[in-house]
Amino acid sequence: MLRNILLKSSGNHLKFSGRYLKSSALLGSYRSKVSYYSTKIQTKLTSENYPNVHRDSRFKKLTSDDLNYFRSILSEQEVLQSSELEDLSFYNEDWMRKYKGQSKLVLRPKTVEKVSLILNYCNDEKIAVVPQGGNTGLVGGSVPIFDELILSLANLNKIRNFDPVSGILKCDAGVILENANNYVMEQNYMFPLDLGAKGSCHVGGVVATNAGGLRLLRYGSLHGSVLGLEVVMPNGQIVNSMHSMRKDNTGYDLKQLFIGSEGTIGIITGVSILTVPKPKAFNVAYLAVESFEGVQNVFVRARQELSEILSAFEFMDSKSQILAKSQLKDATFPLEEEHPFYILIETSGSNKDHDDSKLETFLESVMEEGIVTDGVVAQDETELQNLWKWREMIPEASQAEGGVYKYDVSLPLKDLYSLVEATNARLSEAGLTGDSPKPVVGAIGYGHVGDGNLHLNVAVREYNKDVEKTLEPFVYEFVSSKHGSVSAEHGLGFQKKNYIGYSKSPQEIKMIKDLKAHYDPNAILNPYKYV
Amino acid sequence: MLRNILLKSSGNHLKFSGRYLKSSALLGSYRSKVSYYSTKIQTKLTSENYPNVHRDSRFKKLTSDDLNYFRSILSEQEVLQSSELEDLSFYNEDWMRKYKGQSKLVLRPKTVEKVSLILNYCNDEKIAVVPQGGNTGLVGGSVPIFDELILSLANLNKIRNFDPVSGILKCDAGVILENANNYVMEQNYMFPLDLGAKGSCHVGGVVATNAGGLRLLRYGSLHGSVLGLEVVMPNGQIVNSMHSMRKDNTGYDLKQLFIGSEGTIGIITGVSILTVPKPKAFNVAYLAVESFEGVQNVFVRARQELSEILSAFEFMDSKSQILAKSQLKDATFPLEEEHPFYILIETSGSNKDHDDSKLETFLESVMEEGIVTDGVVAQDETELQNLWKWREMIPEASQAEGGVYKYDVSLPLKDLYSLVEATNARLSEAGLTGDSPKPVVGAIGYGHVGDGNLHLNVAVREYNKDVEKTLEPFVYEFVSSKHGSVSAEHGLGFQKKNYIGYSKSPQEIKMIKDLKAHYDPNAILNPYKYV
Ligand SMILES: Cc1cc2nc3c(=O)[nH]c(=O)nc-3n(C[C@H](O)[C@H](O)[C@H](O)COP(=O)(O)OP(=O)(O)OC[C@H]3O[C@@H](n4cnc5c(N)ncnc54)[C@H](O)[C@@H]3O)c2cc1C
Ligand SMILES: Cc1cc2nc3c(=O)[nH]c(=O)nc-3n(C[C@H](O)[C@H](O)[C@H](O)COP(=O)(O)OP(=O)(O)OC[C@H]3O[C@@H](n4cnc5c(N)ncnc54)[C@H](O)[C@@H]3O)c2cc1C
Repeated sequence: MLRNILLKSSGNHLKFSGRYLKSSALLGSYRSKVSYYSTKIQTKLTSENYPNVHRDSRFKKLTSDDLNYFRSILSEQEVLQSSELEDLSFYNEDWMRKYKGQSKLVLRPKTVEKVSLILNYCNDEKIAVVPQGGNTGLVGGSVPIFDELILSLANLNKIRNFDPVSGILKCDAGVILENANNYVMEQNYMFPLDLGAKGSCHVGGVVATNAGGLRLLRYGSLHGSVLGLEVVMPNGQIVNSMHSMRKDNTGYDLKQLFIGSEGTIGIITGVSILTVPKPKAFNVAYLAVESFEGVQNVFVRARQELSEILSAFEFMDSKSQILAKSQLKDATFPLEEEHPFYILIETSGSNKDHDDSKLETFLESVMEEGIVTDGVVAQDETELQNLWKWREMIPEASQAEGGVYKYDVSLPLKDLYSLVEATNARLSEAGLTGDSPKPVVGAIGYGHVGDGNLHLNVAVREYNKDVEKTLEPFVYEFVSSKHGSVSAEHGLGFQKKNYIGYSKSPQEIKMIKDLKAHYDPNAILNPYKYV
Repeated sequence: MLRNILLKSSGNHLKFSGRYLKSSALLGSYRSKVSYYSTKIQTKLTSENYPNVHRDSRFKKLTSDDLNYFRSILSEQEVLQSSELEDLSFYNEDWMRKYKGQSKLVLRPKTVEKVSLILNYCNDEKIAVVPQGGNTGLVGGSVPIFDELILSLANLNKIRNFDPVSGILKCDAGVILENANNYVMEQNYMFPLDLGAKGSCHVGGVVATNAGGLRLLRYGSLHGSVLGLEVVMPNGQIVNSMHSMRKDNTGYDLKQLFIGSEGTIGIITGVSILTVPKPKAFNVAYLAVESFEGVQNVFVRARQELSEILSAFEFMDSKSQILAKSQLKDATFPLEEEHPFYILIETSGSNKDHDDSKLETFLESVMEEGIVTDGVVAQDETELQNLWKWREMIPEASQAEGGVYKYDVSLPLKDLYSLVEATNARLSEAGLTGDSPKPVVGAIGYGHVGDGNLHLNVAVREYNKDVEKTLEPFVYEFVSSKHGSVSAEHGLGFQKKNYIGYSKSPQEIKMIKDLKAHYDPNAILNPYKYV
């Protein structure tokens, strides 16, 4: 019925290259193979890059007694120790190769009890500890700054229990997200969160960062879907709150504090989470819009008309797609012409025909009204994945010319794109943008617009102090003036520790610091970060 | 197409008395008119009913100086004062007329600044304070135990802002839930929470209790949908966290602590919440099932097949419907015969035809397989409301013979009904159940089975110490042995203060108490309750 339809309405055209997709269990899995960031950069030590940050002398330097103790409670495979920094670079360097610590000791305990013994000892001895999951975090939170001990959760990697009636999964913190998702997929459920790093990041890691990702629009944040946690406190106390109830109103909801705490008040060792029924059908449409106002209109309409089946609403500006094109060399651009803005819409639901029909009605109406001027709908899984690539390739493409300044912000929808415009204007005024040898290629905007989340990437030919000064604190001030967030989903870590004041009031920051002191009085967990 | 179809499959029959409903803006609103609990009982003072609970002598008794201070900062309408208890009974007695305090002073400030001045003064003077919303709570949390000052939020009742693009509503805490819902309904959105008390309870009150209600299955808990709060701390400090971002990872998510804190660590004065697109179509089906295993099967199937349009899944046992029948005198029972279990399914979505078709396919298959043995689908709004009444009338009907012992628990789905069976067996063994003059009519089970939430009501002819001892701690021990919650949605309040240990470990309780002490060192907020 819908195969190869060419809709013509008020001059706009929409290619339905066909829409009968099979149930797409694969959806998203190609994403984990996309490598966003260049790994060719030679990483400098963080302590050299940031000479103003000093090692806190309260922390003990590891002695042979300490090592002997750790060896006495752990097996050989659970201890990685070396005086050669390069041996441990996998643990010392972050995913972007932007931050590099100098730890000489990585512990990879296999049981919660061992995590507890380690922390208890470190707390008594004032040894600083960095909890590490899959080390895919983007704010330098998962690697040491100086000689902190690295506590990796990688060996705590068992699925504990899955209840196919309720859809509740209980697993160790170190289970890789993709493994957890595959496990529940086999039982007709789906993890309520998906992101590009799924092949490496841990379930505990995404909880510790309160990651957002591609399904948040539909399934909400982890604050709603995590039902229980097991946490080892800085003093080694194991707090078992692995509850599996959707509803429990007996006392303050303590687990919420640990969701997004980035390893600063406890080590998450177990997660209990509500998964969602696996959708039977997926659709992806790629649309052209002539203004950002149009993007907003399409979003409001999609939310009302696609409503319960809308599962992603991403936008990309013109420049972001030109950059993507330069990387996706063999790929044909989905549309015939270029446009100022593009939207990627994903629907997922339990009935393919119904979803097709809803999407068709929706698209017909927004085209008829001239809000959408061109568009294409994926015909099969390959096309679906190809359309997603035009969104997914942007981060990598942004730094192809040399480097990129990345900002991950929340803004009111109406102000979302004006940050990109203001940034471009500012960089031009400063005479920094243009052909080589000007340092700036341009600022592009894209992101989870359905969640009010903009990714602003400033593509540069080189890292440059003038560019940095032109951008910061300008970007943070802009976000602050619109009551937005300077970190929508990536967290604070080391990178944004000093910028929290742009999104939180002094009172809120004080309350946050008070809680840190309450739970980690010796401040051994993840120092130099967060607040 | 679907009008008046009689489906016959493997001996089971399903009456489709027709299914074309109009968009049901009214849905749920009749519920606020249902009065669940008898109000004829003469309430005894809580202090007399619980002679073991003593007034904490640290709290100051109000003096004329205190009154003068309050009168100096508040207008006449903001102060209700009387030495005659009956004048203030509206504020001193709870909704069930089970608890009765002796406060002689009710303050109803009109601004947040006044709330702040009041708390600051009370904290300095050690005056105990009970925050009160709509006073519809079911655990005695909203009324004083002794002479605590009542701080009513009823005069803080303005909608502050609504953004029709994002669907984010900001309002004062004292806005009545139904008013908030009507307000956003006019703009094609819906409040993500609905409950029987909506005509009286406050937005701030539902946040303070973390109420669950009828839409939780679909839209999740308030921990996911509340985006920001404005809170006045016990010392009078106003913490403005009225954020309106879906995503913000800058620091611990402080607001989460106040969701479900039942007025023990701060007064909620403002709420920012994400509303949901208003569904265009509703369906309700009332089904018969022969076993509780069948109920579980239907739930798993509904979750998979109705998936994104499933918005309520309630179950009722046979006895609950016999009781309801005794109250719904003029109403015809929806089905021809009696069955051991009934299920009420509600769907809501954006396309009536699609929803009808999904529901039809689903019902055909579960009937064909013999899991559902009889059923009816509402034809119009009146029928839809009538079907809901068979679920909604149960609480009132449960206490028609005299009284009721109510338990609101979370249990793993598979164990949910065994609590009702075990309770009935235990009461019979004790010789307490039977015709008059035996005290117990019987124990019935019903509730939000889709959330693992059982309401166990023991209908009695009189309140009786033998019955109470047979039930408690038996019920709590049962719940505890299955790792359930002794309070799924109503909270702890005064009633369950001493039972938290059945659902939380000593460590968790200690952490909860530590937070209480951290935020309210003088313990002035809502004493004698929670933990
Ligand atoms: C290609 C790519 C795509 C991404 N896409 C998204 C996206 O769409 N949305 C999004 O929100 N994020 C995204 N991210 C960033 C995201 O934060 C991480 O991928 C993920 O949340 C981190 O998990 P991890 O296990 O790797 O944690 P790590 O990077 O190891 O750690 C992150 C932080 O959590 C702490 N931590 C880790 N594990 C624990 C634990 N068990 N207990 C206590 N603390 C712990 C660490 O100390 C650190 O502060 C992306 C990253 C990459 C590389
Ligand atoms: C007919 C009926 C049906 C119900 N159905 C459900 C249901 O389906 N699901 C469910 O979960 N509950 C249900 N409830 C109980 C539910 O807890 C309350 O209706 C509602 O959550 C309380 O709101 P309220 O404004 O009346 O608060 P109140 O009863 O006034 O207060 C409740 C608690 O919160 C505190 N509090 C109130 N406002 C504030 C504030 N602004 N700041 C700080 N603390 C505050 C009070 O001190 C008290 O401890 C029902 C109650 C009734 C009477």
